Amino acid sequence: MRVSLLAVGNEVVTGKIIGTNFRDISMRLRALDLEVVEHISVRDCINEIKDAYSYAFKKCDVIICTGGLGPTVDDLTREALAEYFNVDMVINQGIVDDIVLYFKKTDRDMPENNKKQAMFPIDAIVIPNHNGTAPGVIYTKDNKTLVLLPGPPKEMIPMLEESVIPKLKKKGVNKIYKKTYQLMGIGESHAERLIKDLYDKFNNTEIAPYASVGKIDYILQSKNEEELEEASNLFENILNEYIVGSIDKNIEDKVVELLIQNDLTISTAESCTGGMIASKIVNVPNASKVFKESFVTYSNESKTKRLGVREKSLEKYGAVSEVVAKEMAEGVKKVTNSSIGISVTGIAGPTGGTKEKPIGLVYMAISDENDTKVYRNIFSGNRNKVRLRATQLMYYYLYKKLYEK
Amino acid sequence: MRVSLLAVGNEVVTGKIIGTNFRDISMRLRALDLEVVEHISVRDCINEIKDAYSYAFKKCDVIICTGGLGPTVDDLTREALAEYFNVDMVINQGIVDDIVLYFKKTDRDMPENNKKQAMFPIDAIVIPNHNGTAPGVIYTKDNKTLVLLPGPPKEMIPMLEESVIPKLKKKGVNKIYKKTYQLMGIGESHAERLIKDLYDKFNNTEIAPYASVGKIDYILQSKNEEELEEASNLFENILNEYIVGSIDKNIEDKVVELLIQNDLTISTAESCTGGMIASKIVNVPNASKVFKESFVTYSNESKTKRLGVREKSLEKYGAVSEVVAKEMAEGVKKVTNSSIGISVTGIAGPTGGTKEKPIGLVYMAISDENDTKVYRNIFSGNRNKVRLRATQLMYYYLYKKLYEK
Repeated sequence: MRVSLLAVGNEVVTGKIIGTNFRDISMRLRALDLEVVEHISVRDCINEIKDAYSYAFKKCDVIICTGGLGPTVDDLTREALAEYFNVDMVINQGIVDDIVLYFKKTDRDMPENNKKQAMFPIDAIVIPNHNGTAPGVIYTKDNKTLVLLPGPPKEMIPMLEESVIPKLKKKGVNKIYKKTYQLMGIGESHAERLIKDLYDKFNNTEIAPYASVGKIDYILQSKNEEELEEASNLFENILNEYIVGSIDKNIEDKVVELLIQNDLTISTAESCTGGMIASKIVNVPNASKVFKESFVTYSNESKTKRLGVREKSLEKYGAVSEVVAKEMAEGVKKVTNSSIGISVTGIAGPTGGTKEKPIGLVYMAISDENDTKVYRNIFSGNRNKVRLRATQLMYYYLYKKLYEK
Repeated sequence: MRVSLLAVGNEVVTGKIIGTNFRDISMRLRALDLEVVEHISVRDCINEIKDAYSYAFKKCDVIICTGGLGPTVDDLTREALAEYFNVDMVINQGIVDDIVLYFKKTDRDMPENNKKQAMFPIDAIVIPNHNGTAPGVIYTKDNKTLVLLPGPPKEMIPMLEESVIPKLKKKGVNKIYKKTYQLMGIGESHAERLIKDLYDKFNNTEIAPYASVGKIDYILQSKNEEELEEASNLFENILNEYIVGSIDKNIEDKVVELLIQNDLTISTAESCTGGMIASKIVNVPNASKVFKESFVTYSNESKTKRLGVREKSLEKYGAVSEVVAKEMAEGVKKVTNSSIGISVTGIAGPTGGTKEKPIGLVYMAISDENDTKVYRNIFSGNRNKVRLRATQLMYYYLYKKLYEK
């Protein structure tokens, strides 16, 4: 089955955003052995959307189109579907009720223009959206299937996985075996160098890295189960140190899980990360079992006052130093009476660097009942990237520590 | 002048990489007021590349195509150009010499297959590549211009800026007038409803919203300066309450700027946002001028201990209540000796909601030298969205407060 992906939205075509939907959909379809033929992004213009439908259907059986399902006059993919297939649209009262309910949950009335999100061809399959107001559509005519999904990934991906993929699967796909790994604490080119022999050795297994700030997701897949087994065993042996599990969970979820298993509590003392590490813990639904509080101690005064960092240490070594990182971690552990205290202090830039302490220098410490370990790194990238990399790496250190317990 | 962007490469279509070329080219062309019509990504397949050329040329005068200029058998955009325009390719000896030289610099001999990178139509304009071996091409026939550039951004961008853009500029571009607005504290469908008459009234002005969690960016643009002026005046009148400036700055940058101007300091006491608000302040390079520290007080105990929230208030009203939000904001202001103390306490979900206090209920407070104001909201979406929406809205409240000072 051949599939084209279409994205609708001025914000994509004008370069205002880089979408991740194409990658996320392509990855998932590949895992099913569906052939993705091309990606097309067009503007919020009904004729251009219709042109793209007809161009893509020349080459493929299915189009998956994201975006343009909102309630505004700019949202035109539904209208383009009706005109392209020459079908009438009708109001689906069940969907109107769903949308009314969605607004009610947050004490609001449904604006009249949201009603348009419930307009579909009478014989379309409607895909419920549990994370927003725009339902999706699967519409088939003359053996051509057009799937419309909302643009926001958090709405789109669950709908793709729960409704669209099972439908496509029914049409018959070959079994593909798959393993996924999440790697942290290593860069992409280093990882690729370490496993470069695997690419030649396993011709029938695809090995694909997907790198983002502070982590790499690897997907290994093959039609040959034994070959996948052999390739993934070698992969695990070579990269063992950096593997933090499969890609279906965030590292912070894994860390909170391990903390719960080990009956431990944690608190953070953050300077340059400014609460980013705490915020990620709090995003895990079970966080309250292991997390009580944190301090963002940006000034020297607050480091002394809240965490008991010695003024002498700050004077002698500076706020960004091994000694201060250590005292921060030990301080926050003591003050909050937690099993583990962690700290981050660094120079995120764009100013403040010196020859001895360049921009990107970050000290991080983890203190537990046994000892305090301090890590020194120099990260590249702008202020936000330095902070993100530090946050990710701290989670990697925590994971390794807890996993080895 | 209308331009389509084309990317050639299996790695893009299979979702192995997310390219940044489309964004980088679109941004640069927009700045010149060139109209980018669409983006298309196709595989390394000569027929699919030719199909894309002919589809795109139906709508546009210029195609800028990246990728597929390497020396291997998979690199086919040059061949597709020759077939599409039906022109002969000849070896350009000057370019062969350049490539030989490029290899010599790194003590290597030029592999024979790199010669293919020097094949062009005799009347093509060749664009030198100072950062790699693949030269680019500008080829025009029958008023259609096809530009081929290499895929790696480090090679592509300098060639685009030094050679392609000056050529396109010469062809003359129309002046486009533009105004941008960032809106907060209002949803997209509500905003669209308020301004829906503008869409009809101003036919020659494009009004485009770009919504993301907690904010909407609007871009108004027109070839007619007076019409834009009139449209933007009306736009400002209608949406005045929600406009927080133009889109070139984040709200946290604006808030830090206003704090500096007013010589104020700020500290946060966060429960469900878990440090997200503090982390956004710290991401502003000048943060240290206004921000000293923050508390993430997730447990009741920490609210009492760090901020002086009364146990009685927690017992009587619960942690998620107007009273506790007020005491948290006043407490953090006092403890840190800041001019402004802010607080957030809410139920982010997925569990913990009741009929009286549903998931998504968030109390936020801002306390300054005059008084403490408490805001109550019920946000929709999953745990992370509730936290993000609360964070964005707090910045909106702060902006309004500081702006009106």
